[in-house]
Amino acid sequence: MEQRVSLVTLGVGDLSRARRFYEALGWSTGAAPDDGIVFFQAGGMVVALWDRGSLAEDSAVSDHGGWGGVTLAYNVGSPAEVELVLDEARAAGATIARPAAPTSWGGTSGVFVDPEGHVWEVAHNPFWRLRADGTIELPS
Amino acid sequence: MEQRVSLVTLGVGDLSRARRFYEALGWSTGAAPDDGIVFFQAGGMVVALWDRGSLAEDSAVSDHGGWGGVTLAYNVGSPAEVELVLDEARAAGATIARPAAPTSWGGTSGVFVDPEGHVWEVAHNPFWRLRADGTIELPS
Repeated sequence: MEQRVSLVTLGVGDLSRARRFYEALGWSTGAAPDDGIVFFQAGGMVVALWDRGSLAEDSAVSDHGGWGGVTLAYNVGSPAEVELVLDEARAAGATIARPAAPTSWGGTSGVFVDPEGHVWEVAHNPFWRLRADGTIELPS
Repeated sequence: MEQRVSLVTLGVGDLSRARRFYEALGWSTGAAPDDGIVFFQAGGMVVALWDRGSLAEDSAVSDHGGWGGVTLAYNVGSPAEVELVLDEARAAGATIARPAAPTSWGGTSGVFVDPEGHVWEVAHNPFWRLRADGTIELPS
């Protein structure tokens, strides 16, 4: 198994609301307005929004609601950008769970929660290389 | 906010076991043996393993356990490879939640669950382009 992820699917209760949220963040999809699943090209991978009950069934798991131990992160090029992205997320309908602040590991981060409860950390990590194309390179 | 994901962090109860599982799948990390967090370079992004309680606290969410509406997927180049990856995952310690089979959408997929309960679909989607570098391109 190669060291990569092809797709992250976020289960949602209200697909239209979830789609509007990510579109309000500036994301665009080729999905038709009434498609039952929404795919966003996210760099070299894909982020999907799909009915959470269908995703649970397809994933062969029980869903008792709430958070399940997965947090996404979006890295940016400067501490100031952390605040900007959190402001954008709030304007799009997110809840700010943790405001931008310096972290114990020497970076800056904050956390927003999308309208469906999915958690995104927005971070500036001065020790990781963020390339112009948005890809991340760990220090070797 | 650009259309990308920098990091997917998987919260784990037993970091050593989780690390051994992904290493048994063939993944490698630069983390020291006793590091409290493990980063895997995964294409242009990063997959991290971190204590689930710490991740919940850092994410400012309550954790009631179980699955939380996020499923990862790993796409491969042929239906036969779906079975091969599921076999690798089983050998590394995963549970096969759904064996490889044709899907309603015209592809082939199966599902494994890692030792910490995180769900991966392994899929061949003949309608998506899988490049040699492992990146995915949605049809335009």
